[in-house]
Formats: sequence, C-alpha cells, structure tokens
Amino acid sequence: MRLSRYFLPTLKEAPSDAQIVSHQLMLRAGMIKQEAAGIYAWLPLGLRVLNRIEQIVREEQERAGAVELLMPTLQLADLWRESGRYDAYGPEMLRITDRHERELLYGPTNEEMVTDIFRGFVKSYKQLPLNLFHIQWKFRDERRPRFGVMRGREFLMKDAYSFDIDEASARKAYNRMFAAYLNTFARMGLKAVPMRADTGPIGGDLSHEFIVLADTGESQVFCDKRLVEMAPPGNDVDWNDLQSVFDERTALYAATEEMHDAGAFEAGTPEENRLTARGIEVGHIFYFGTKYSAPMKAKVAGPDGKDTEVHMGSYGVGVSRLLGAIIEASHDEGGIIWPDAVAPFDVVVINLRVSDEGVNAACEEAVAKLEASGKDVLYDDTDERPGGKFATADLIGVPWQLTIGPKGLADGVVELKRRATGEKQTVPLAQALEIIG
Amino acid sequence: MRLSRYFLPTLKEAPSDAQIVSHQLMLRAGMIKQEAAGIYAWLPLGLRVLNRIEQIVREEQERAGAVELLMPTLQLADLWRESGRYDAYGPEMLRITDRHERELLYGPTNEEMVTDIFRGFVKSYKQLPLNLFHIQWKFRDERRPRFGVMRGREFLMKDAYSFDIDEASARKAYNRMFAAYLNTFARMGLKAVPMRADTGPIGGDLSHEFIVLADTGESQVFCDKRLVEMAPPGNDVDWNDLQSVFDERTALYAATEEMHDAGAFEAGTPEENRLTARGIEVGHIFYFGTKYSAPMKAKVAGPDGKDTEVHMGSYGVGVSRLLGAIIEASHDEGGIIWPDAVAPFDVVVINLRVSDEGVNAACEEAVAKLEASGKDVLYDDTDERPGGKFATADLIGVPWQLTIGPKGLADGVVELKRRATGEKQTVPLAQALEIIG
Repeated sequence: MRLSRYFLPTLKEAPSDAQIVSHQLMLRAGMIKQEAAGIYAWLPLGLRVLNRIEQIVREEQERAGAVELLMPTLQLADLWRESGRYDAYGPEMLRITDRHERELLYGPTNEEMVTDIFRGFVKSYKQLPLNLFHIQWKFRDERRPRFGVMRGREFLMKDAYSFDIDEASARKAYNRMFAAYLNTFARMGLKAVPMRADTGPIGGDLSHEFIVLADTGESQVFCDKRLVEMAPPGNDVDWNDLQSVFDERTALYAATEEMHDAGAFEAGTPEENRLTARGIEVGHIFYFGTKYSAPMKAKVAGPDGKDTEVHMGSYGVGVSRLLGAIIEASHDEGGIIWPDAVAPFDVVVINLRVSDEGVNAACEEAVAKLEASGKDVLYDDTDERPGGKFATADLIGVPWQLTIGPKGLADGVVELKRRATGEKQTVPLAQALEIIG
Repeated sequence: MRLSRYFLPTLKEAPSDAQIVSHQLMLRAGMIKQEAAGIYAWLPLGLRVLNRIEQIVREEQERAGAVELLMPTLQLADLWRESGRYDAYGPEMLRITDRHERELLYGPTNEEMVTDIFRGFVKSYKQLPLNLFHIQWKFRDERRPRFGVMRGREFLMKDAYSFDIDEASARKAYNRMFAAYLNTFARMGLKAVPMRADTGPIGGDLSHEFIVLADTGESQVFCDKRLVEMAPPGNDVDWNDLQSVFDERTALYAATEEMHDAGAFEAGTPEENRLTARGIEVGHIFYFGTKYSAPMKAKVAGPDGKDTEVHMGSYGVGVSRLLGAIIEASHDEGGIIWPDAVAPFDVVVINLRVSDEGVNAACEEAVAKLEASGKDVLYDDTDERPGGKFATADLIGVPWQLTIGPKGLADGVVELKRRATGEKQTVPLAQALEIIG
C-alpha cells in the first residue's frame, strides 16, 4: 500500500479528553475517530488491526471445534421476555421501537437468540456437543463511555455458546474454551490470566474472566504471579480432556475484586508470589446450566428417549477492546509497538528522497520482493521530511522499518530497524529481506 | 469440515410464507433463519457464502483504488440535520433514543458520516482523489419486508464514497466504480447490466443501477440485449481513463422503469435487440457533486490556494442481497447451483458407508488431499442414507460432489459429479482430484 494513496490521518497531539495511553495513541495514529460518545469509526489502519485480531480469535475458536454463524444486531424484545431478562437488564440495553411499534433491542449479548436457533433445529443428543459462535457488533448503553474502544458503547465481540446433554459434558465444553482463550491471547502477545469471576447479568455459578495486567486497568485483581508466566496449552492437546489445563491454573489463586477473599489469598499463596495489580478484562466465560434452556424449552431427546434440557455456557472475547489492551501492554514514548501477529502491516518501507529515481526504483524493488514473500507492506512514498516519516513509522508501530536513501544506496546498503527494540542494522537489501524473513 | 460436527439444519420443505425460490432455497439449505420481519441470522452455510461475496466485492474495490474503513452502525441525528436529510428521510429510517435522551439512528447509508470524517482530516487537493469504502450492516425499516434477504431490513452493504477536486475528476472516480462493478458481478457469475436510474433520496444528477435479469425481479427494466452479453472490462485497464468503458455501455439503451422513455427505446434500439424484463438491483452508483460537501462545509485548498467544496459520489453494492440474486439466477429443481467463486465449499465428499473402515479411510485420504491443495471441503460423514446425502449435496449446491462407496472402492473408483451439469464420471480417486483441479 502506497501511503500517498492511503488514508492515514495521524495527529501531532491527542485530544485532551483522551485519558489513557491506548486511547491517545489510537487517535494519534489515525486508527479511530469518535462519532458519538462511545461510538467510533475505524479508520483504515485501525480496521486492519481489528481484522487481524478477529481472525486470530476465529481460528482459535474453530480449532476448539466451534462453528461460526452470524446473528443480527437487532433482536425482538419478546425473545428476551422468555428468559425474563428484558425487564431485568436495565438501562444498558438500547431499546428501539420500529415503524410498526414493534419492540426491538440492539443486542448486548445473544444467549436468548442462540437458544432460539438451537431449539428450532436440534432435537437429539446425537447432534451434541455443539458450540456456535459469532463475531458481531454489540451495543451496551454505558452510562459513562470512556477510554476509547476500551469502554465503548458499540463494540465488536466474539461470543460463543455451547450446548451439551449434561453438566459433565458442558464442563468439557467450558474447558475447551478455557484452553482456546489461553492460546488466543498468547498468539496476540498478551499475558492473560484466568480469574474466578462474578457471573453478573449472564448468570450461572462458574465463571472466569481473562485479565491482562496493566496499570490503567479498570479493576483491581489479585493473583499468584506464577500464573502470569504460565505457558499456554498450545494446539497439541486433547480437546476432549483438558481438565488438567483447567486444574493447573485454578489451583493457584486468582480473583477479581468482586470475588476476592483476602484470607484465602494469604493462606494459599506464598508472600513472594502474591500479586495485587490492575487488570483489563479481555474475555469472560460462563457455565450456567439450564438457566436459558429451561424457560425457553431448549430440549433434546436423550439416549433414553426422554426430553432433556440442554446445559449451556457462553464465552465472550472483547475483540475491539483488545486493541486497547494490546496497546496498553505494548507501547513506548514514540508510539505503539504491535506484536507481529496483529500488526496492521509487517513492514514499512521508508523512501528518504522521492525526487531521486534510483531511490524510487530501489524502494519499489524492496516493496515488490516483500509482497512476493507474502508480507503486508506500507510504502511511505510521500514527500514528507525524513524526521516526520520516522516519527510516523514509530507512532503506528509497524514491526519492521526499512529505510532507503541516496547515501546508503551509494554504498549498497539500506537501514533496517526493529520497532520493538530500536535495534538498527545497515545491510544490503537482500540481507535485510532475509532478516525480515 | 465434517458434517457430523457442523451445523447445517436443512429442511424438507420451505415455510409457506417464502414466496420466491431464493428465499425458499436459503431456508431449505439451512443458510438463514428469520429472527424478526426482515431480520435474519446467517447460519454457518449462509455465512460462508456471504463472506466469499464480501471478499470479492472488497478485492475489486481495492483494485479500483478504494481504501477500506469501517463506520459504526449507529449515527448521531445531528449529523443528518446538517444535510437536511434527518427530516427528509421518512419512516424507513430507524430512529433511536439512548439513555441520555440523545437522538441516534441506525445508518441506512453513510454520506453524512463519511463527509464528516473527510472534513475532519483532509485539507488539501494534494490528498485527492480519495475513495473510502466500508462493508457494514445497515438498517432500512421497510414497510413490508419480503423475499428473504432480497428485501430485508437489516442488510449488509458495501458503500464507497469518492472525493474529488472537480467534476471532471469526480467523473473519473465514477467511471472507476462503474468498471469495478462490472468486474465484481462478473466474478460472481452474474450478468449485471448498468442502467440509467433515478437518484432517489441520495440525490444528484447522474446515477446507474446494476441490474441482474430475473423473472422474480422487483422492477421492470428495458434494455438493448447486447448489453447482457457484453464482457466485463477486466483488470488490465487504465484506471485513470475508463471513459470508453462507460461510453460503450451507455451508448446502448438501458433504463429502469422510473427513467424509461419508450420513444427513445424504440428509436434507438433495433426491434430484435429490445429486451423488456424483470430485474434485481444489486448495485447503485451516484454522482451528486457538492450536495453534501456544500452544507457540511467539506472543503479543501485547491492548487490556487482557495477553498473548494469537494465533488462527491457514492457507490453501493447489496452484499447480502447478492446471495438471493445469485440463487434466482442459478438453481434447478434439486436446489442451488453456486458459481465456483462464491460457493460455500468447493467439494463435498460423500461417504456411502460410514460403518466400513475402508470407505472411511478412502474418504479421509480424499479430504486430506483436497484440503492440501487448498480446497474447502465438506465431508459428509453422517449415517444418513445415500439418497438423503445426494439430496442434501444437490440442495446446498456445492460445485463438485465426490462420492466414495464400497462397490466403487472394490473396483478402485469413485464417482465425481459436477453439480451444475449433473455430469458424472466414474474414475480412480487420483483422476477425480485432477479434474477438480
């Protein structure tokens, strides 16, 4: 992508109402623009990162056996009356009346709708286990939206819903998502710790939040610090038996403020391992049994031929919020430092003199070779001054910066900089391409 | 994908309220489920096709130089007051009030919002031409939603918006989208004819609809039949000079009912070329000059340093509606016939006896080899009877059916069927894989 033909409206300074660094950097890097309180347009650079995060979430859901569908943003109020949540949900639910005076709502979550889909089609235990997920825009009418995409009103969420014949099988489904989440966040370069959590308006009696530690986190968390460094289970696991993955992590103390038990924390965790920190919730999983299937009559015929209410769980990832969480965890004074897996581009090629045909030719050769090897390349072919180009490249956080100018070319070299470390190498183009890989 | 682990709830019969064949087949093939009038959930098979169509639209937009962003579904009413459309739009606009009594709306289109984004960042003609597009869910509160996804209320649309310094440049932008649309629809196997059209609530004085001819089309159209068979311009064009592509097509008569001039049709079109038919609108493009930039003060500094209102156009494709249009154009009594480019899977492998280990092994070998060569494979490993499996494969319209059973295996052969033609070949597996390609 040529920067001269792209739309990357960077800002010298963030608006003063942006309080946290991720919000400031997303505005400065031209990733988002606020359209209303808690409602954002995703500018091209922001959308690229959003898509990459979404794709990682999708791949890990599919690896764990979940099947993707897509439910609409608007739902019928009557569906939520079946579960009793229409009245219970409160002012965070955006309620809408259409031209025929029918009551709709902008979905904040989809337990009712997916249960309705399930009961419409699935009649036998032989069709279980089933896990259906979608990645769709949601709306929660937060009283005080803030922190950019971290606490927006219109936000992108992955939500999965598992259906099983009994609790034992539902626990396996829960463990599959538990493990998938560990892999998902690790792929994005995040250290996310599962913590025993309150179930809130979703309900149920088993729930974990996945928390990224960050000073700007909205909630206080308490955990054994060994959990922070524990490696994810990886792909080479038995998806039907993940109890050990679950047990290994839940044996150590980890709880959000609402669930914290100071006595248990001190009794069970050696002092040197006790960590009290701020955290950002990036995922939340629930097992809630028949809370929705019972009132909504989602039943299947069991092996004995009798109708049985299915046991369900739901599993959310805050896809748009993850951008904020990743930036909070990975930035410096120059700007964002994207982990390779979610970066909007793999490399930015910086042309130091666009009036020089030799430099242009060398840059275009570099871009062509990088693209031929499958890299996403941003080519800064603008007539901005070098200092401005370097500042932009640092700000937007692309992992590799390949700088080509007339002096280096005369010596047969280019400059390759790794954004994360700042390390620079002056090498021939071929060698730079090899290092980028 | 193993069918036994997938979610493909096919129906023997379509609900009686589905009036047209595409709606009936999408319900029967387990592609969609209605959640409210004109609001659908996309079940896994439907979502796969939607994604493939969306990706073709995206690639052709990018090839024509458009840059993708993503605007939110909800917009501020005040933004629409700037253009005067908030009051003008009528009851098709879904108006919403949030918890703080702020007026929002569910975007039916995005001229105002994209103009606001533009004016916030673009200040000089040097940043032009610019074309920004997004693919996002829209809502139009149709009085009488019908025909499934063809006239839904919540629907997926690609909308692009061009910004140019003057009318001459804006006409070039219009021609780029005109050509991109011809390529887009051709890639999906559709014959779409551009027709002079009314501009409606978008405004402006130049507009074309892209119409797919189908007996169930909602509107009457009149055109020279040579337009139907005209080849698309292809990728090897000069994107800065497409006037000849535009002229060649607009020299022949083509108009929707609202713009039809019977006298001109008869005077300009030899009788044997006059075609009167029903059509489905799949795209609509507009040039409307300064209709939005003037009231919204979207200006850039021109080459002479003076502020100039930008000239704009907008360009829509009905992404979700395209599924209906393609099915209307491509089906038979057995079900859907997907063109290869948009098919949910490339091949369905049909196991005729899942109790036979040899058959299972042969099927799994076939699936593995197909997947290794980059094919999307649906593997029917269910214990359904052969007749049911063949009917399902026909219904869901996957281009190739590869059937493996014990009798064939004993002779070292499998059966390969091309869905579109019904042609069957009994050949060794290796040869079948070669034919699939």
